[in-house]
Formats: sequence, C-alpha cells, structure tokens
Amino acid sequence: MNYDQICDEIKNKRSYLCIGLDSDLDKIPKHLLKYKDPIFEFNKLVVDATKDIVIAYKPNLAFYEVLGSEGIKTLQKTINYLPDNIFKIADAKRGDIGNTSIMYAKTFFETLDFDAVTLSPYMGKDSVDPYLDYKNKWAIILALTSNESAKEIQLISSDKGEKLYESVINDSLKWSNPENLMYVVGANREEDLLNIRKIIPDSFILIPGVGAQGGDLKKISNAGMNKNCGIMVNVSRSIIYSDKSTNFEESVRKSALNIQKEMEQILLNNKII
Amino acid sequence: MNYDQICDEIKNKRSYLCIGLDSDLDKIPKHLLKYKDPIFEFNKLVVDATKDIVIAYKPNLAFYEVLGSEGIKTLQKTINYLPDNIFKIADAKRGDIGNTSIMYAKTFFETLDFDAVTLSPYMGKDSVDPYLDYKNKWAIILALTSNESAKEIQLISSDKGEKLYESVINDSLKWSNPENLMYVVGANREEDLLNIRKIIPDSFILIPGVGAQGGDLKKISNAGMNKNCGIMVNVSRSIIYSDKSTNFEESVRKSALNIQKEMEQILLNNKII
Repeated sequence: MNYDQICDEIKNKRSYLCIGLDSDLDKIPKHLLKYKDPIFEFNKLVVDATKDIVIAYKPNLAFYEVLGSEGIKTLQKTINYLPDNIFKIADAKRGDIGNTSIMYAKTFFETLDFDAVTLSPYMGKDSVDPYLDYKNKWAIILALTSNESAKEIQLISSDKGEKLYESVINDSLKWSNPENLMYVVGANREEDLLNIRKIIPDSFILIPGVGAQGGDLKKISNAGMNKNCGIMVNVSRSIIYSDKSTNFEESVRKSALNIQKEMEQILLNNKII
Repeated sequence: MNYDQICDEIKNKRSYLCIGLDSDLDKIPKHLLKYKDPIFEFNKLVVDATKDIVIAYKPNLAFYEVLGSEGIKTLQKTINYLPDNIFKIADAKRGDIGNTSIMYAKTFFETLDFDAVTLSPYMGKDSVDPYLDYKNKWAIILALTSNESAKEIQLISSDKGEKLYESVINDSLKWSNPENLMYVVGANREEDLLNIRKIIPDSFILIPGVGAQGGDLKKISNAGMNKNCGIMVNVSRSIIYSDKSTNFEESVRKSALNIQKEMEQILLNNKII
C-alpha cells in the first residue's frame, strides 16, 4: 500500500485504528484450544469482527516465534487471511548489518507478505536501507517508545542539544521520505510527539500504548495528527482480550467500535473527514 | 553454560573462535541442493569439520526466517545437533517491551535451546530484563557494531561527554553482571574497545567483523582480552564459504584451523594458556 491508499482507507473507514495481534495461547478464550491451530482461529475471529473498522493489523513476531515452526505457519496463514485493503505490519523490531537486513527484508516482504516492518535504529542507515528498496513497502523505525526504560537511552541529550530520538529522526531524513518510512512514538509521549511533528510534518507515525499501556487516545491524537491524519494508533490487549467467553468476538468488536467512534469524532474535529 | 565453563572451554580448545552460521541457499555448495534440507546438511558438515576447535556457533536468525516455517525447523535441528560443550548464540538482535521480551526469551531459551541471544539496547532495561531471569543463559547487547553507519547513532556524544555506546554500557551495569550479560563490539573498533575494557573489565565481549568485514584478529584480540580471555571472535563468511567444491568441508576446517592457530599464539602471548 502507498501513502495515498492508506490516507484513503482512513477516510473511508473513519478510523486510524491498528489492532495488535499479540495472540498468546495462555490468554485466548479457552474454548479455542480444541482447534488444531487455536491462534489462527482466534486471529480469524478477531479479524472478522473488526476488519471493516480498522486500517491495519500488527502481529508481534515474538508471539508466533515462541511456538517454533508451527507459529510461523500460523503467522503466514494469518497474513494471507487479511483483506488486501488492510495495512499489514510485522512488529519485529529488527536491525542488523546490510547483508543480514537484506535477508530480513526478504523475510517480511517476500516470504511473508507484510506491507511494513518495525525496525530498531541502533545500527543506523545500513540496517534500514534494504527495506527501502521495495516499492510500496514500508520501514517503521522506533523513535520514542512507550516503555518506562526507553528514556534511559532514547532521551539522552547529545552535545548538540538534541535528544537521541531527535538525532535518529533527523538522521533518517537523509535516508528516505514519507512515502516509505514511518516512525513509532509511544502514546504516553505527548509532549515529545508535538516536537516530533515539527521535524516530520508529513510522515506517518505509528502510536502504540493506548489501552493496556495507559495512553490517552484523544490527547495523543491531537498532538500527532497532521492534515492527512498521519497517525495509526495501535491497541492490542484491551481489544483482543476484552472478554474470554465463547462469544468473545462480540466484545472484541464492541471494544474496537468504541475506539473507532472516538477516532471518527477526532477526525471530524480536526476536519480530516 | 556459565562463565567458568566458557573460560574452561577456551583453555581446553586453545580457541576463542565462534563461527557464524549465516547459511544461505544461494551461497552454499551446489551439490548440497539435492538434499531435502540443504541448509541443515551444510551446517552439519561445517559443525563436524570445526566443533573441536571452536567454542561457539552463532546462527543469524535472518538466514533461517527467510525460509519461513521450514527455516525454523532447520534452525531447531541445527541447534539440537550441536554438542553440549558448545556455546549457542542466537544472533537475533531483538529488543521489545517487557511483555514481548518475555516471549522472545522463551523463544530462544525454551522453544529453541540457545545459551545466549543478541539484543538491541535501544529500548533500555525493560527489553533486556526477561532474558536475565534464566540461570546460565546470557543476553548479549549491541554496544558498538562494525557496520559503517553505526557511528551515526552509536558514537553520538552526550552532554555528559559520553558516547552513546558508553551510556548503554554504563547503564547496563545497573541491570546485570558479567555472569549473564555480554556485549557486542565490532572488530574494526579497536580504539573504542580499549576504552570499553576499562568500563567492563570482566565481561565477555563478542567480536564480529573479522574476515569478510575486514577486522584484524591480532589487533582486536590484544585490545579486548582480559585475564580470562574474555572475548569470543566471530567469523562467518570467510570460513563457511571458503570453498564451494564437493569437499568444501576440508577448506572450512583449514580456514578455521588457521584462525585457531593464530588464536592459540595470542592466548600464549597473553599468558592465558
């Protein structure tokens, strides 16, 4: 998917919701355990209940890798099950030397059919470049994450007076453009997000941390939105684990719909729709 | 494996060589392609040819993930094939929030039976902690990597006068100890390695970048060694792809043996053996 297609989907669905498919055998409703591939059954039900009101799904690789080769099969089936108009994010947080990054880019964009992959910027440009060679595919680099200890590293001030995440973003402007690079900024980093928007006015920002991690949707949206919306907000646990009954998918839809309705109002208030 | 066991293996084998199993279908000898699992056949032959003169193997996950679920099976078979006295490093460069890192730690230390996993420090302590909960298992965090663009990020100077990699290492001293945490420092970072040794005199340092990436074994070893050796030097491509003939394993052994002999001399010169 390209930039304009994502913007169109946001306007059509009146939503910038991404659901994190962090699907865990210990947390999914127990009645699904009777199936041969419980995680796939769970993902299918979550997707069927929400695909008309979300623009993206984001499986976190750890939850599939922990199941070994079978988990990778489940991931592949899940990706193949997603409709074409859904933006598919591999939350993998990879980052390696160029030689290896070529293999990771192939993994996520060819072996698996993701649209985007999250990357750690610690190794710099070489580790991001191979992903940028794919047309209509995206690298999403970690800028400022929502976890408590992020500040120990990402908020370090340089002798130029920049915080590390600012250096990362400024550096990335030399590698790429808003058509193939997005950024991760945690939902609890509202003040920094205002600052980040000044550096990257046009780029998409993926915002995790609303819900179980405690971020406030309205505040973070108003801080991060640009004229095209320009943000995707990810919610995982508070949607997918909102209920454990045999009708859990109804509760999943209700939780997602509540967020989508709030997003619709924010989009209207910001005159994007 | 614990710290003392690794030290004993180094002394017994008179070697601190780690071989990177970055095994690529496009680069392995062509005659292996007739096997059902060519990468596993290749790895077996490399391991058989070298296991008495190396202390560790380090498969890079990208080279297995690119093959989908079959690649993970190959990785699992490879790990199971390695002798008990070999240190098994998952070169995965992961790094995520605590909730997810728990799943990655389980992946590498339970689903797969690795001794250690490489991690990116960009997200700080939370992203490393879950690995440290496993007894006799290791986290290996990226400090200063060998790739060209590493300097754009890792050598940024803070307002305290520290380079970023120094801040990362100093920070990590609060999380852990030399019994469960190692560091990656590229073989071309000799001067910085001298500096790093002052901050972490006792910790193991994993040094990639000798061979195809151009690092000098003697120089980097002398800069990095402590009284227990304290370093593992990884070589990948210049050993495993040293020959493409049907007898390639002889050339693999010869390449590894040349390095082991040089290491033996360096260990003798430094009075470690």
